[in-house]
Amino acid sequence: MARWQPNAPERLAVAALELFEERGYENTTVIEIAERAGLTKSTFFRHFQDKREVLFGGDTMAGLLAEGIAAAPATAKPFEAVAHALDAVGREAFHPARREMSARRREVIAANPELREREALKGLGLTASMTDALKRRGVPELTSCVAAELGALALKIAYERWSGTTDGDDFGDVARRALRDVQAAGAVH
Amino acid sequence: MARWQPNAPERLAVAALELFEERGYENTTVIEIAERAGLTKSTFFRHFQDKREVLFGGDTMAGLLAEGIAAAPATAKPFEAVAHALDAVGREAFHPARREMSARRREVIAANPELREREALKGLGLTASMTDALKRRGVPELTSCVAAELGALALKIAYERWSGTTDGDDFGDVARRALRDVQAAGAVH
Repeated sequence: MARWQPNAPERLAVAALELFEERGYENTTVIEIAERAGLTKSTFFRHFQDKREVLFGGDTMAGLLAEGIAAAPATAKPFEAVAHALDAVGREAFHPARREMSARRREVIAANPELREREALKGLGLTASMTDALKRRGVPELTSCVAAELGALALKIAYERWSGTTDGDDFGDVARRALRDVQAAGAVH
Repeated sequence: MARWQPNAPERLAVAALELFEERGYENTTVIEIAERAGLTKSTFFRHFQDKREVLFGGDTMAGLLAEGIAAAPATAKPFEAVAHALDAVGREAFHPARREMSARRREVIAANPELREREALKGLGLTASMTDALKRRGVPELTSCVAAELGALALKIAYERWSGTTDGDDFGDVARRALRDVQAAGAVH
């Protein structure tokens, strides 16, 4: 049995990003990604179901958002719970050191229809994960749906803003601003 | 050259729905769908890019929503323009006579992961179409995104409510109620 590899998903994602940039998504194989990362094909498939998945980190993000909502104070209103989830994503996933890679990742995804499709479906999975987490807090179904939809939109906008800038902004701060902007826009009837 | 077939997309959709119910989505071929509809395979591919597309009416819905938003009075605020778009969908696509078929269609889609995926992507296309139509009215980008997201959510909720009921509700009425519910839920901060 292969021994456990530290940070294998991260190493595979970095290797995939480099190869997609160098020779294009279509012209890169899973074996090449694994080789570049110094890992085996079977390690790749232990972490990702297919080549399309390697830039999307499995279900990490959906889990972080659900945990962030669950961990919000009992008194937090739905949108405050969503803000907690966005903070958790900033703390656990979008460190300042990952910003440059995030910008490159966005460009690679934008250039490929298959990756754009997978990203869109992943985004829907994040909305569903937040909706379920809010319902588990006792938030009514429709309010859960709306707060999760607007939270997912804020996350997307925040990711674009954060990965596109070069100053020292913390992802959590950017995300909270985006959530306030989205809520304010929704209040214009 | 094949002569023009009246209502070919509708006939193909009905035939596909019957076959998916009878023998399952995976066990049905495009040729069988065309035969059941009394049409040819090439007619099928003139209207739909693949088997997955046949239950989704090409880009009709996205076009109806964009036209509905464009046709709203110049004074209409963003959410009023979205309500106009939902009315247009009710007038042009979701007639009372189509309700029973809509309920069957929902069951077939719910039972198949490929169809659920296509439906999810179609939903994102509707949001994008409404966002662009709102921006063309001069609505700011972020407000356009939020109004379109909430409009798409209202459309989805309205479709579920409308296709699940048996009373005489007009789709436009159901959709306007859903849009008000969604807006009210978004206002709970």
